[in-house]
Amino acid sequence: MADLPFPGFDSLPLPILLAPMASGATTPPLVSAVSDAGGLGCLGCAMHAPDAMDRDVAEIRRLTARPFAVNLFVLDELQTPDAEVVTAAWKLLRPIREKFGLSAAAPPPTKFGESFAAQFERLVTLRPPIVSFTFGILNQGQMDALHKAGCYVIGTVTSVAEARAWESLGADAICAQGSEAGGHRGTFLHDWTTVMTGTMALVPQIVDAVRLPVIAAGGITDGRGVAAALALGAVAAQLGTAFLRSTECGASRTWKDALGRAGDGDTRVTRVFSGRHMRGLDSELRRALEPFADTLPGYPVQLALTAEIRAAAAKAGNAEYISAGSGQAVALAREESAATIMTRLAQELTAAGKRANWARN
Amino acid sequence: MADLPFPGFDSLPLPILLAPMASGATTPPLVSAVSDAGGLGCLGCAMHAPDAMDRDVAEIRRLTARPFAVNLFVLDELQTPDAEVVTAAWKLLRPIREKFGLSAAAPPPTKFGESFAAQFERLVTLRPPIVSFTFGILNQGQMDALHKAGCYVIGTVTSVAEARAWESLGADAICAQGSEAGGHRGTFLHDWTTVMTGTMALVPQIVDAVRLPVIAAGGITDGRGVAAALALGAVAAQLGTAFLRSTECGASRTWKDALGRAGDGDTRVTRVFSGRHMRGLDSELRRALEPFADTLPGYPVQLALTAEIRAAAAKAGNAEYISAGSGQAVALAREESAATIMTRLAQELTAAGKRANWARN
Repeated sequence: MADLPFPGFDSLPLPILLAPMASGATTPPLVSAVSDAGGLGCLGCAMHAPDAMDRDVAEIRRLTARPFAVNLFVLDELQTPDAEVVTAAWKLLRPIREKFGLSAAAPPPTKFGESFAAQFERLVTLRPPIVSFTFGILNQGQMDALHKAGCYVIGTVTSVAEARAWESLGADAICAQGSEAGGHRGTFLHDWTTVMTGTMALVPQIVDAVRLPVIAAGGITDGRGVAAALALGAVAAQLGTAFLRSTECGASRTWKDALGRAGDGDTRVTRVFSGRHMRGLDSELRRALEPFADTLPGYPVQLALTAEIRAAAAKAGNAEYISAGSGQAVALAREESAATIMTRLAQELTAAGKRANWARN
Repeated sequence: MADLPFPGFDSLPLPILLAPMASGATTPPLVSAVSDAGGLGCLGCAMHAPDAMDRDVAEIRRLTARPFAVNLFVLDELQTPDAEVVTAAWKLLRPIREKFGLSAAAPPPTKFGESFAAQFERLVTLRPPIVSFTFGILNQGQMDALHKAGCYVIGTVTSVAEARAWESLGADAICAQGSEAGGHRGTFLHDWTTVMTGTMALVPQIVDAVRLPVIAAGGITDGRGVAAALALGAVAAQLGTAFLRSTECGASRTWKDALGRAGDGDTRVTRVFSGRHMRGLDSELRRALEPFADTLPGYPVQLALTAEIRAAAAKAGNAEYISAGSGQAVALAREESAATIMTRLAQELTAAGKRANWARN
């Protein structure tokens, strides 16, 4: 790791990573604000076309001279979904489309997501100092290409076995995603239901199992959680929901307002929005589609099918039909600028660290 | 709280509670060893007849002069289960009974658990310094009786709403049970699936919502987790799985050995063993009964129906047919004496607290 351009987490003024939330939530201003404040901003590029990756990475480089990260979802090549599955899933959405004034007669979309191969190729060209991956695992050739390009590589995992797989491949660090985490589950070696391990239990078991630095993710939404992550043996904490209501975040007003009303117990894990299991606020759309969850096409096909509804609902201020990704500690997220959040996290971290640095007289 | 005999968690030499594991796991020697080492030993009496409560509490008082706690499951009065439901559940167990040489023709048991009213009455008479409750919530008369008897009362919760309910009733402290926890889920106001909130997310949200001291439980199995709990704002951590393999623990050899082989991802939440959802190691018995889970009678009826099988399997060293309660951080549990575990926890807590007491220069 010594030869890599990212000097490691010890050099970060604050042991805090921005979670690479996709759907445009992690804008260049948010990424650069987190990096400028001493953390590590991460750009979620899972839904970016290669040219959008160019544009956003250039913008981040214009805004900050600090290190930043770029995340991709590791996917098999573009899916050619079963037409009958798509037709059936599309039919389920018809009454909901009508509700939002969208044509019920329109045919389903035919473009589903971006090509991972094309995204990956662009990533190597862009050479961000840090790259992270979710959803799957790279092959050796891809890992070697990133290292040759000088990138520091973080693999996201939900189990000890997945952490060992990334370690064997030569990853530089592990992001351990606990069951509390908002957004998509990163599980790639197991049935996701069998590895819904909470951050408190997952992090120390992974720290003990691998020799790599471990970043804790899941349910960490203020400085108390960051201090807890460090106590568990993590080198840093990755926070998503904490920044979802930030001024710079690209989440819709509808999404941000829904988060502001939510508390513990208001999130669910479901595949109905995107075709892949993710945690977000419960909603009418989730409940309407859940009985058919197993019949829906996979990611990113279902994501494309629900896109127009989610966009229309966001525009109409109707949080019941968007996909409001959220972790379980949503009540701790505040509507503040990213810089204010970072300052507050640092203060909370200091106070919480003192509590944890326990001594009885 | 000032008038209560338990002077509060600040007076505990170590901010560690033994989880009140039932099934005889929390023996008087284990309870007293934890209290003697500076923590708070807790006797799980959910499955104790009143006379057994007398016997064990007297034994604890003989073994230690330190404070200790007694836990009960709050239950409605003794269930008179539907005969058809019992017959159907019993029939499902027949092939498994045969496997262990138990009569397949035997009629099902007719005694199901202990009377909570009788247990509660004995508890008030015994006046342990601290009492804790799981599964449900007391009524005001019961709460007042305990306070009149001089007991410090801890209510176990899995959500902010449940914490507020105990606070309104006049509880002295809240035990926040995260989704990682082994043993029975303490959910009483919700469908349990909707409040599977990880400890990392649950504890700070409850700390912010109530004015009572909060004890963190769930996935805390070494001193790193204790430090993390303190960072999150808890006054102490409650550990169960950490003590399940201890010398003094009453868990069977079969159970202890199974825990020693387990890792992250090896536990499941199921109601097939007892009729109430609990987390334990996955097993053949769990998989055999899971398809019928919704048809099985409730706690403690199903617990009585599976009792002979579980006992026979434990005796035979067959971990696939016991109910091996376990939290998600099982890989951190070690086979040591309770005193050694407490010493190690204190050392780990100190080291982890230093890591959390973060400062960059």
